Amino acid sequence: LTIITLTTDFGWRDNFVGVMKGVILGLNPRVTLVDLSHELPPHDPAQAAFSLYAAYHFFPEGTIHLAVVDPGVGSDRSIIIVKAFAHLFIAPDNGLLSYIIDQAPIFKAYRLENPALALGRVSRTFQARDLMAPAAAHLSLGFPLEKVGPETANPVRLPPLHPETHENKVIGRVVYVDRFGNLITNIPADLAADRPAAQMVIRIGAETINGLSSAYASARPGELLAVAGGSGFVEIARNRARAERPPDLTLGTPVVILFVD
Amino acid sequence: LTIITLTTDFGWRDNFVGVMKGVILGLNPRVTLVDLSHELPPHDPAQAAFSLYAAYHFFPEGTIHLAVVDPGVGSDRSIIIVKAFAHLFIAPDNGLLSYIIDQAPIFKAYRLENPALALGRVSRTFQARDLMAPAAAHLSLGFPLEKVGPETANPVRLPPLHPETHENKVIGRVVYVDRFGNLITNIPADLAADRPAAQMVIRIGAETINGLSSAYASARPGELLAVAGGSGFVEIARNRARAERPPDLTLGTPVVILFVD
Amino acid sequence: LTIITLTTDFGWRDNFVGVMKGVILGLNPRVTLVDLSHELPPHDPAQAAFSLYAAYHFFPEGTIHLAVVDPGVGSDRSIIIVKAFAHLFIAPDNGLLSYIIDQAPIFKAYRLENPALALGRVSRTFQARDLMAPAAAHLSLGFPLEKVGPETANPVRLPPLHPETHENKVIGRVVYVDRFGNLITNIPADLAADRPAAQMVIRIGAETINGLSSAYASARPGELLAVAGGSGFVEIARNRARAERPPDLTLGTPVVILFVD
Repeated sequence: LTIITLTTDFGWRDNFVGVMKGVILGLNPRVTLVDLSHELPPHDPAQAAFSLYAAYHFFPEGTIHLAVVDPGVGSDRSIIIVKAFAHLFIAPDNGLLSYIIDQAPIFKAYRLENPALALGRVSRTFQARDLMAPAAAHLSLGFPLEKVGPETANPVRLPPLHPETHENKVIGRVVYVDRFGNLITNIPADLAADRPAAQMVIRIGAETINGLSSAYASARPGELLAVAGGSGFVEIARNRARAERPPDLTLGTPVVILFVD
Repeated sequence: LTIITLTTDFGWRDNFVGVMKGVILGLNPRVTLVDLSHELPPHDPAQAAFSLYAAYHFFPEGTIHLAVVDPGVGSDRSIIIVKAFAHLFIAPDNGLLSYIIDQAPIFKAYRLENPALALGRVSRTFQARDLMAPAAAHLSLGFPLEKVGPETANPVRLPPLHPETHENKVIGRVVYVDRFGNLITNIPADLAADRPAAQMVIRIGAETINGLSSAYASARPGELLAVAGGSGFVEIARNRARAERPPDLTLGTPVVILFVD
Repeated sequence: LTIITLTTDFGWRDNFVGVMKGVILGLNPRVTLVDLSHELPPHDPAQAAFSLYAAYHFFPEGTIHLAVVDPGVGSDRSIIIVKAFAHLFIAPDNGLLSYIIDQAPIFKAYRLENPALALGRVSRTFQARDLMAPAAAHLSLGFPLEKVGPETANPVRLPPLHPETHENKVIGRVVYVDRFGNLITNIPADLAADRPAAQMVIRIGAETINGLSSAYASARPGELLAVAGGSGFVEIARNRARAERPPDLTLGTPVVILFVD
């Protein structure tokens, strides 16, 4: 009863996701398919990398995660299959698995090259359907990982997810904006969670926030606040007030936490 | 082969729904998950309450319905689990289950407080994932309802769904606007379905409609009409003409049906 | 372990798709449901017909495809069930199955009229839930196709999908626009795939493209190109530049391929 999760920028409007599922179920009708996200920003592997990194560990070990956000469709970049944390990950080799590889104490990575795992007829513009989906299905049926293709030691890496940490300061950035307009930073909530509000100042753009709130509802509507988010990272939000976010608070905006005594 | 349905305002863009499914499948890999809606208007429990009330009875008895639209995330409001109509419902105690409770000849409600049902680490900002999803999974595995927490006799109620009925008049309102721009009222179709058109005048905003049509296609394109909708309530629609709906016909707009002899 | 796919214009915002699944699972809890698309342009059977035609063959034989995009909801048009290519298709008789029927060497079509296959109470505005969903479930349980209603030899047909082919010229048109803004034509990729770029000129609107590219990434960002698309048809795209598509390149725009020696 293996689970295969799907993370793409294909959207729900077209049949792209559906036909990938058709290919997978045609090979393994007993797999459980879960959509993680299909509305990721097109052509930005970094946000997809964060989304997958923040999500995979809520699935049981043995889950197979297929992820495709790929500015280089049809170019010469490889598809890689990574085993890490007892999960399997299939993605273009463009950094999408970067944060998972960075954090894994040990990982194995292979290039998907075994032609026996491909659909009969492979298009150059839809490798997710023709190469990645059947590979995921075959792996869910027990196909041995070491036979998918040659091992590779150096998958493409993005700049590290980690923030800069100094003695009394953490310098991070916004790495994801969710549909409520909440700004997810790369600052692990653990770094800030136990400090009293009086000892912590958070700066983002021209705004200053004092300490972490315990929940969105603890702020007045419209007020900016910081919380230890569900993703495990510090999040900046306005309580119930998505629209009023200043335009300078967005993806990439630096977020600085100062610890004062 | 239990079904768990999911109703949220989390959207499809982020991985919120996906990780809830990971948590559920990690505990019970044999459950069948069905997405009822994830694009409900954020922070409006009333529309979610209507959507769930209009949908649950199309599922078999024994189905577990998990619903989250919650302006009070992380505040002190409880999570409740309700048994009614031989279905189970899990939701924040903010009125979301109000219409189901109002209609049920008998119901049992419990507060979800048993820590054995929570994920290892509970965030304050994502209780749907950390408390509600695992509770749904445990219930699908047969965990006894009366052990989830203390019974409660007074879940939060919204103003009743029912319209005002007078001798020759029903005063209702628009309680839901669907993606086609159809206006769903709280007037049960049964109240109007058998009356000939000549004996019924429907007033909404500045508009007047004579009687119920038998189907959308029976009106000219652009014409306003009323039908006994698929939801079981009177619906106001323009045939194929979403864009032209006047701005005063919207959520909350009063709808009056006059019966004339 | 039958698969039922769903193709509609119902959107993800409301519970329409969810309740159809409830009806199906209530009758056959062991079916596997796959969403093909629910965001098809409302009221345009031709784009839905293309989407389904391009997708169905990625599913295993025996799959049941339920498709609803229907300007005539509640009118007198029939619902038809078609067996072709060893798949089953259920749709309103409005041309939605046209391209499948046109291509099938042999097909059988029946009108869905057997009242034993309907839900207890049938609304006129939601036949997808009350007639089509239960019919799909019953067929997945082995209900005999020839008992769903009378056979029909003449389902409604749309204008043919095929382009005009001349000795040195193919005259096609844009039949689908995907979420990336790619323009999918009705010209089979096979007609063009083996010609060198120097022998092929593609005209769309005021634009001229020389030959097929092997992949999106082979063009400079913003450049217009043509590829043998994943759908099996020639596609016109701008590499990574959805927004800049001229407004005259859209659904229905003629696309002419000239073969020169």
